[in-house]
Amino acid sequence: MAEKNSFRVFATCDIGEEAFGVLRKRGYKLEVYPGPEAPPKKLILEKVRSGIDGLITTLRDPIDAEVFEAGKGRLQVVAQIAVGFDNINRTDANRYGVPFTHTADVLTEATAEFAFFMMGALARKLWSSEQQVRQNLWGSWHPFLPFLGDEVTGKTIAIIGTGRIGQAMIRKCTGFDMNVLCFDPAYQDHGFVGRIQELMDFRHDRGLQKERTSIKYAKFEEALAAADFVSVHVPLIRPGEGDYPTLHLFNEKTFRLMKPTAYFVNTSRGPVVDEAALARALREKWITGAALDVYEKEPLPADSLLRDPQLEDRCRLFHHFASGGRITRLSANPDKGMAGRCVQGLVDVLERNYGGDISQMPYVVNKEAFLK
Amino acid sequence: MAEKNSFRVFATCDIGEEAFGVLRKRGYKLEVYPGPEAPPKKLILEKVRSGIDGLITTLRDPIDAEVFEAGKGRLQVVAQIAVGFDNINRTDANRYGVPFTHTADVLTEATAEFAFFMMGALARKLWSSEQQVRQNLWGSWHPFLPFLGDEVTGKTIAIIGTGRIGQAMIRKCTGFDMNVLCFDPAYQDHGFVGRIQELMDFRHDRGLQKERTSIKYAKFEEALAAADFVSVHVPLIRPGEGDYPTLHLFNEKTFRLMKPTAYFVNTSRGPVVDEAALARALREKWITGAALDVYEKEPLPADSLLRDPQLEDRCRLFHHFASGGRITRLSANPDKGMAGRCVQGLVDVLERNYGGDISQMPYVVNKEAFLK
Repeated sequence: MAEKNSFRVFATCDIGEEAFGVLRKRGYKLEVYPGPEAPPKKLILEKVRSGIDGLITTLRDPIDAEVFEAGKGRLQVVAQIAVGFDNINRTDANRYGVPFTHTADVLTEATAEFAFFMMGALARKLWSSEQQVRQNLWGSWHPFLPFLGDEVTGKTIAIIGTGRIGQAMIRKCTGFDMNVLCFDPAYQDHGFVGRIQELMDFRHDRGLQKERTSIKYAKFEEALAAADFVSVHVPLIRPGEGDYPTLHLFNEKTFRLMKPTAYFVNTSRGPVVDEAALARALREKWITGAALDVYEKEPLPADSLLRDPQLEDRCRLFHHFASGGRITRLSANPDKGMAGRCVQGLVDVLERNYGGDISQMPYVVNKEAFLK
Repeated sequence: MAEKNSFRVFATCDIGEEAFGVLRKRGYKLEVYPGPEAPPKKLILEKVRSGIDGLITTLRDPIDAEVFEAGKGRLQVVAQIAVGFDNINRTDANRYGVPFTHTADVLTEATAEFAFFMMGALARKLWSSEQQVRQNLWGSWHPFLPFLGDEVTGKTIAIIGTGRIGQAMIRKCTGFDMNVLCFDPAYQDHGFVGRIQELMDFRHDRGLQKERTSIKYAKFEEALAAADFVSVHVPLIRPGEGDYPTLHLFNEKTFRLMKPTAYFVNTSRGPVVDEAALARALREKWITGAALDVYEKEPLPADSLLRDPQLEDRCRLFHHFASGGRITRLSANPDKGMAGRCVQGLVDVLERNYGGDISQMPYVVNKEAFLK
């Protein structure tokens, strides 16, 4: 353990005693905003101005020139507990020479498994089934009344986006003997796809699945047209931000390509989906159902079309909760927990790990400002 | 296709047009009770007495000496659309020489996947998350408020009962890099366990899972003590019915063996669980949560202890719905659908398939009455 020191840190939210303990044991002076809501910006400025060395933030906290100006000469690092960092003005951070860190990678498995469970809860109608029990509607057994769900095992899934989370989703789908159609406009990992095909063959050859299954890259339109399930794992790229924009990638035109029996699952970013188009696709039964964890506007507005009571049996709505596992959020181990990765990012900068070369520190986002 | 014939069949419930079509195409005269509820026994007796050749039944219909007496000399087969047949008096069927059929096997994958999704919905708190959205309780993002779930990937599961459904559950768990502890009092399939271990090693060696995982048979107490998840897949065996009774296998003593962080999933038969003990285990936090699809009394009584509002966030309740997939229930393919298997069982007997040797017919339950 490093020798005791007396860095001052302000956290805009509680990230759990396990991770804070890491800082306290190292002698850090820690102040934590107590509320579940975001602190007012005025308070963040006040704390920064009072002379803190490190600031722990979340997506809700606007971190810009005003904040960096308030911390000038003292604030050394902003450690964000999130993968995204839309709230941090990168240009301003670079101008003031303040590195900021994020918590990528550790969310991969939690997010993929949540997508998988969303898919199952949707297709097998867990929500409607529990309503039957809790509202005492459950009558006598009948082969197909009051409703049936659809099986997942053995079906075909389209994975839109084959980065880390998309690949984790595919690894999980192999347990369910699913055929996989991959689409990614920017990145094709044929080595991974080859290894999954070997795994599928192994399962079949050992009698661990009845039917042979396959995985391959396909065109977007082909994947949508053939899939029983479509699961989205792309980053949000607005027009002008990259070669393959994903804003409203799912719209009236693309939902119409899907099978009327198909289900749609989104755990990526809300604006990848045109929600008005999705609501129409559900109402007019272009597709059978959808499960969403992310929305164009969050929290989901009370007047969202997705809340239509007519859609309730085939539209699952979650509160941006895919990374909401205890280990994923709170573990002090930086290879497992966002909290652990957040404090490690902060410690790296303040304690001058990696020989003090910020551009070498794994969790720093704006490395470009520190390249020698 | 067999030549046209004019067998008369009465079905106590609708089993779907796809399967009925098979009978109609073969010239059968078919009458179907229209209600979602069970027909009165008086009506069943009347129909049987009127001279039907085959009777299609479900778990709700009491089939005993009175029914067989009414069909004496004419009723040739009772085709039950269910795996269970507690409603059919086997002794009476044998005395009157009437074979009855059931629909085993086709439910395996649907039931195992439902158990898997129940486990995920429970641990990742899908029900509570959707309540946040639908009740407009969703506030701003926070690392652990209002609640977190627990990850499933990489955890240890105890599979209690390693018959067909237990094995299907294990095959699904391999996609989630889970360690598996097996327990079965009556039946150990070491060949299967060996193949799963090979599969786990293959995944690890190919870089498709980070950690090595393992599967093995364990003692009941060991399995319960070490598992993060316990999933039950045993038949119901009451004391005196077999060497290894399973009635109340899960009781105060056995729930206390589980970890306080563990989750319990039951898709087998309700009376395998002492529900009062489970409610106490949840209230007093001997375990973290439970998901049930079957109950000591079904439909679940309105005053069940499991409905305690204090337990709602950690007790998932489904309406005996694990086999409720469209293909599983309704496909006319006897290798896929209960309806298909049900009509095939009926056709086998009436049309004297297997050389008319009822003891050779795969879906007949009471073969003992027809052994030559």
